[in-house]
Amino acid sequence: MNDSREGTVVQSDTGRAVAFSDAVFAIIITLLVLDLRPPEVEAGELFFGLLQQWPTYLAYVTSYLYVAVVWLNHKAAFTHVRTMDRGLHWANLGILFTTALLPFPTAVISNTMRKGNLADEVTAVGLYALVGAMLCASWLAFFFYLSRHPQLLQEDRDSQFFARESTRAWVGVVSYSVAGVLGCLLSPWVGLAIFLLLPLFYGITSHGLDSLPRRARRSRSSNTM
Amino acid sequence: MNDSREGTVVQSDTGRAVAFSDAVFAIIITLLVLDLRPPEVEAGELFFGLLQQWPTYLAYVTSYLYVAVVWLNHKAAFTHVRTMDRGLHWANLGILFTTALLPFPTAVISNTMRKGNLADEVTAVGLYALVGAMLCASWLAFFFYLSRHPQLLQEDRDSQFFARESTRAWVGVVSYSVAGVLGCLLSPWVGLAIFLLLPLFYGITSHGLDSLPRRARRSRSSNTM
Amino acid sequence: MNDSREGTVVQSDTGRAVAFSDAVFAIIITLLVLDLRPPEVEAGELFFGLLQQWPTYLAYVTSYLYVAVVWLNHKAAFTHVRTMDRGLHWANLGILFTTALLPFPTAVISNTMRKGNLADEVTAVGLYALVGAMLCASWLAFFFYLSRHPQLLQEDRDSQFFARESTRAWVGVVSYSVAGVLGCLLSPWVGLAIFLLLPLFYGITSHGLDSLPRRARRSRSSNTM
Amino acid sequence: MNDSREGTVVQSDTGRAVAFSDAVFAIIITLLVLDLRPPEVEAGELFFGLLQQWPTYLAYVTSYLYVAVVWLNHKAAFTHVRTMDRGLHWANLGILFTTALLPFPTAVISNTMRKGNLADEVTAVGLYALVGAMLCASWLAFFFYLSRHPQLLQEDRDSQFFARESTRAWVGVVSYSVAGVLGCLLSPWVGLAIFLLLPLFYGITSHGLDSLPRRARRSRSSNTM
Repeated sequence: MNDSREGTVVQSDTGRAVAFSDAVFAIIITLLVLDLRPPEVEAGELFFGLLQQWPTYLAYVTSYLYVAVVWLNHKAAFTHVRTMDRGLHWANLGILFTTALLPFPTAVISNTMRKGNLADEVTAVGLYALVGAMLCASWLAFFFYLSRHPQLLQEDRDSQFFARESTRAWVGVVSYSVAGVLGCLLSPWVGLAIFLLLPLFYGITSHGLDSLPRRARRSRSSNTM
Repeated sequence: MNDSREGTVVQSDTGRAVAFSDAVFAIIITLLVLDLRPPEVEAGELFFGLLQQWPTYLAYVTSYLYVAVVWLNHKAAFTHVRTMDRGLHWANLGILFTTALLPFPTAVISNTMRKGNLADEVTAVGLYALVGAMLCASWLAFFFYLSRHPQLLQEDRDSQFFARESTRAWVGVVSYSVAGVLGCLLSPWVGLAIFLLLPLFYGITSHGLDSLPRRARRSRSSNTM
Repeated sequence: MNDSREGTVVQSDTGRAVAFSDAVFAIIITLLVLDLRPPEVEAGELFFGLLQQWPTYLAYVTSYLYVAVVWLNHKAAFTHVRTMDRGLHWANLGILFTTALLPFPTAVISNTMRKGNLADEVTAVGLYALVGAMLCASWLAFFFYLSRHPQLLQEDRDSQFFARESTRAWVGVVSYSVAGVLGCLLSPWVGLAIFLLLPLFYGITSHGLDSLPRRARRSRSSNTM
Repeated sequence: MNDSREGTVVQSDTGRAVAFSDAVFAIIITLLVLDLRPPEVEAGELFFGLLQQWPTYLAYVTSYLYVAVVWLNHKAAFTHVRTMDRGLHWANLGILFTTALLPFPTAVISNTMRKGNLADEVTAVGLYALVGAMLCASWLAFFFYLSRHPQLLQEDRDSQFFARESTRAWVGVVSYSVAGVLGCLLSPWVGLAIFLLLPLFYGITSHGLDSLPRRARRSRSSNTM
């Protein structure tokens, strides 16, 4: 009796944390569009002004995909979480913090690529790589915390799930770092290309690297039924 | 037992996707108001400055109606969805992506119509038509995916519902394209008029083209009871 | 059986409409703060710059109270709604539309009052009165629709509730109109004073004009128990 | 029968208030990032421009932590609330009001610290201290109202919880006031350091000052099981 009361204070179900996180992700993904602005051009130049903003569109698509993937991962991860303590709340708030940062390097990149100064482009790519790597690192911290506190997980948890997700988070930290370095050494465009490809990779593998064959198997069996 | 666990990972109920979509729609519909700004006029000119912003007000009303209709459609469609897989999540994220774009062409139109340059007005109308058609196309992809994965639907689904909704989405793709072409060939105002009428049409038919007589019948029978 | 399926399509429970409305209200009430900006002043002048923004703070408080009252009313009204049809959805979207407009006249007022041009101040007060009256009128439409469609209400509905709420909405339409007229004829500050007092009045009477004695009675009885 | 109907009108469950508050907190915590803007610098100067913005980053982190702590406190407090009356709604709206103010002094501080005028820095620190103290005072009002209306609490409520939380709120009011005074008398940086440390203190003690040993005890017992 005393235990259950104490439980509500110190630990809690995931409902409010999930609702809060959903709202934060929804706002971040929508705030990105605020950087799509009507170009300030002379009368009659709107068409070319819109075309010249293409780095802004690319940056928008890249960051939209990234936040979408973070949301899908968050959704998949929380199906395994039974209850939350303060540590897990802060790990979750860490993910929200790094995701909320994303519109900033996105705006810096779309601002810089229009102007064509190499030093600034390298800086912008480096900043995006830094925030991208921090975002993956915040997932790593989240999975690490869960692996150390298995009592927070569902009973029918898949311990392999978190091992696999940690691997994917490590892949992200390394990839964004490499993209940043290549963007500095070779060309900013190499960095940008990797930034665009990474969410695509994560999107396709968003329920674990081996989920594709499993789904195929599943559909086949439901078709034969 | 193993099946149910696998089910939570690979497929999922619609709760979080619906809550996330609601938040995104709410933000988009509210962000539109950020383009209603106090006009920058000389002292004493505020009244005329406010009047001269009328294209902004019209663009605001048009896009508000459009997002409202998208939300009503989304709500109606998800009453038929039982569970979601990764493909349906991405189809849904596609709808959110094109809807989130809407404040951008809205701002371009309200920015351009005040200045009175024909070439720019044609460009602005063309951009709005493009985004409007993309939004309808994203619905088409959503309905197409569902028609190919009937196992995601409620058991008591109405297969006619999705056939009918696909038709309406096609009507939208064609209408926005036609509005764009007419806006270029005849006059931007023809395009704008169609943009305003389309959400009104969708609003009135928002639960399927034949829902009006059915509701009339229903009310009549409840009145006689 | 056929009836219940039809019911899900044509009518629906209030869950998503309420969640969507909550998100819209939350965004509107928070967007207002975006007009509180650091003043653009010479170095060393920040203190006086902040003080001179006092009309902005007043406008912020007034509109915050107004949206808070709209939310409390919305919450109270929806406890009486059992299910929604398309008409009630549009009535609700009408309330959200007029509420979402509020940051616009708020920004116009806080922008104008700093500059001290009488003609502009009268215009700004007139605009706020117009939007305030429209907002009350959208509630009137909502209550009127419900009174004509009693089948959407809870079984244990209080028909007096909606009569009372309609009266309060009428009071609002008239009061904002009067405030606008007095603001034009006498002084803008008279209008502003009424704008500030109206949400206070609605806040105190937010569960109906006779709720105060009823609550007093209730507390007394629970105290004696 | 009559009682239960009356109860829905005058009192209500916490569902919508919690959802509305979550949305407001999510928006506030995300709006803060809007002040992280690409620096306006000459071509080639982006790197140094980004570095020079460090007070903005610090202000962002500080306010993010503050809002995160407010959300954790809100979550912990509402596990004790069973039902809400109008007074508690307004106390809650007061917390949302002062929290929604936070992006304003944050922007003022990050704007001012870049320019290096001592008088303005003192003003900015004073403004932040004022809003920080108001936020703690709104919590104090919330806890005071609950302590006077115990019928709104869960049956298994911990009356010590609210005594403890009131103490923490008092600590906050005093600390922000002291930080403001020290910021004026000694140096703005002393004030800023306290602003950063306070949310850290509240974050660590977010479930009450004695929650750390209790959790340790709990984990130990679950490990031995």
